[in-house]
Amino acid sequence: MSGELSLWNDTPNKKAIVDFVEAVTDESGAHYVPPGKRIATFDNDGTLWCEKPMYIQLVHGLRAIGKTAAEKPEVRARQPFKAVYEKDMAWLGKVAEDYAKGDPTGLFTLATAITEVLADITVDEFEADAQEFLTSAQHDRFKVPYKQLTYKPMVELIEYLEKNKFDVWITSGGGRDFMRAVSEEIYGLSPSKIIGSSITFRYADDEKGVAQVLRNKDIEQPIDDGPGKPPHIHRATGRRPIFAAGNSDGDIQMLKYAKGHKGLSLALLVHHDDVDREYAYDGGAETALELAAGSGWVVVSMKNDFKRIF
Amino acid sequence: MSGELSLWNDTPNKKAIVDFVEAVTDESGAHYVPPGKRIATFDNDGTLWCEKPMYIQLVHGLRAIGKTAAEKPEVRARQPFKAVYEKDMAWLGKVAEDYAKGDPTGLFTLATAITEVLADITVDEFEADAQEFLTSAQHDRFKVPYKQLTYKPMVELIEYLEKNKFDVWITSGGGRDFMRAVSEEIYGLSPSKIIGSSITFRYADDEKGVAQVLRNKDIEQPIDDGPGKPPHIHRATGRRPIFAAGNSDGDIQMLKYAKGHKGLSLALLVHHDDVDREYAYDGGAETALELAAGSGWVVVSMKNDFKRIF
Repeated sequence: MSGELSLWNDTPNKKAIVDFVEAVTDESGAHYVPPGKRIATFDNDGTLWCEKPMYIQLVHGLRAIGKTAAEKPEVRARQPFKAVYEKDMAWLGKVAEDYAKGDPTGLFTLATAITEVLADITVDEFEADAQEFLTSAQHDRFKVPYKQLTYKPMVELIEYLEKNKFDVWITSGGGRDFMRAVSEEIYGLSPSKIIGSSITFRYADDEKGVAQVLRNKDIEQPIDDGPGKPPHIHRATGRRPIFAAGNSDGDIQMLKYAKGHKGLSLALLVHHDDVDREYAYDGGAETALELAAGSGWVVVSMKNDFKRIF
Repeated sequence: MSGELSLWNDTPNKKAIVDFVEAVTDESGAHYVPPGKRIATFDNDGTLWCEKPMYIQLVHGLRAIGKTAAEKPEVRARQPFKAVYEKDMAWLGKVAEDYAKGDPTGLFTLATAITEVLADITVDEFEADAQEFLTSAQHDRFKVPYKQLTYKPMVELIEYLEKNKFDVWITSGGGRDFMRAVSEEIYGLSPSKIIGSSITFRYADDEKGVAQVLRNKDIEQPIDDGPGKPPHIHRATGRRPIFAAGNSDGDIQMLKYAKGHKGLSLALLVHHDDVDREYAYDGGAETALELAAGSGWVVVSMKNDFKRIF
């Protein structure tokens, strides 16, 4: 196993992961789990890719709002179009701040506007747009396209699990179809392995008579966050995970769901403690960090456990 | 290819299927589709397993209603508990008749009662119950457990497609978790490959503090039928199928969605024309059969194309 997880330092956390994988894959051992039941679920924002200073999908959504505000003066009278058009960073900053404090009102206003400006297009058009954005738009600090901002040790962990015949899924509070646009390229996971929040869809024939699936405005409930995660996981996989990885309070129920597996299980919490190479923040993860300590979850230190970040 | 589809007679329909599969898997050909994009979707009731004289899931639901009616006298005052308790076959027959005529009111009353009596249990409990039913309850005419009533040439078709690196899904108007209980055993497909209609779920810790996913009463909208199928397919797979198989009007939009693929595609309609070995009926498939003739869909004759049924 010495060649495994080469981007991880040789810490107790790495050992805990490798020990777990070896135990559940050992056919003659007491903790063996057959391949079809080795379900692993990963959160995305802050667990697999960078979520600071802003959710990547929010940057994409703001761009779409900006486009609409530029084209349609009538929308500029209301938020968030006004703030985006006027580059009112105070308004936008407050949205993030409120959300971190547990007040999602501003984020909901933003999300509603985003679903509005991205409605009534086909799923193929949305995919092309998201793909273009993730490939061309750059992160302000790291100066690379957003799709490159995946945590490489975590991507390596996905590959390691897949090599050990785990069935790996990504389940994110963020938009499912947004991640799917690049999931194969950046995670090696087909679009069908991506679960997440989503708007609803409708069927329609286009003007050429070709059957299309179109995006609606309304967000499917519940979103794939907090207590919504286990239902989403059940819907997509039909099974309880034996491994789950997250980084925030929105992942608590998913981590507990994995820990509810009757055999051996592993819950992993990525801790953002590397201010030099990424960011250091506990905001929005306070309860998870507290629970982790008492629940035997593996708290991964990005600073100490990761040889590199990106 | 002579050893392929051994349960199919050598008819033009079999040739059309084999030709299609050979064309999209031929890397040097004009119609090549890479493995990850070879999405195939199958309807279940009447396409993969027997749906007469009654949807299998309905038999399961009626049994659950009967159990509740036997235990709780107070529910017997209302339908469908009254009809089930009194074995009022006229009332129940009318439900099926009305539904075939396009009036789903009775079926909705039934479905609502079924979701009610199967609510507030964990997904594991439901799975065990469905599994037990499909393994032990017998079909009145064929005298075998329901799970044996799959059309073996269609199961062979699934295997043939998988062997040719198709990504095979089942997408049914019927209940997703009901099929999942036996999908691996009868179709060789993991639960995650089963799409379908469903109630919604909620997360809760049980009395031992173990995280559980529980069934709610309400049915998720839209159901996975008719115009609801392409949105369900998109949600689960993220891709447009290039192959789809159905048997009724509820499959039209799915078949059209597959035919909307820009390259080669195949839409297949199973025609129930074998009164001796199964059933013969066009009810509920009239429009699909009409469309098939004008759209180049392959209409499979169970009588002429299948060497055996079960």
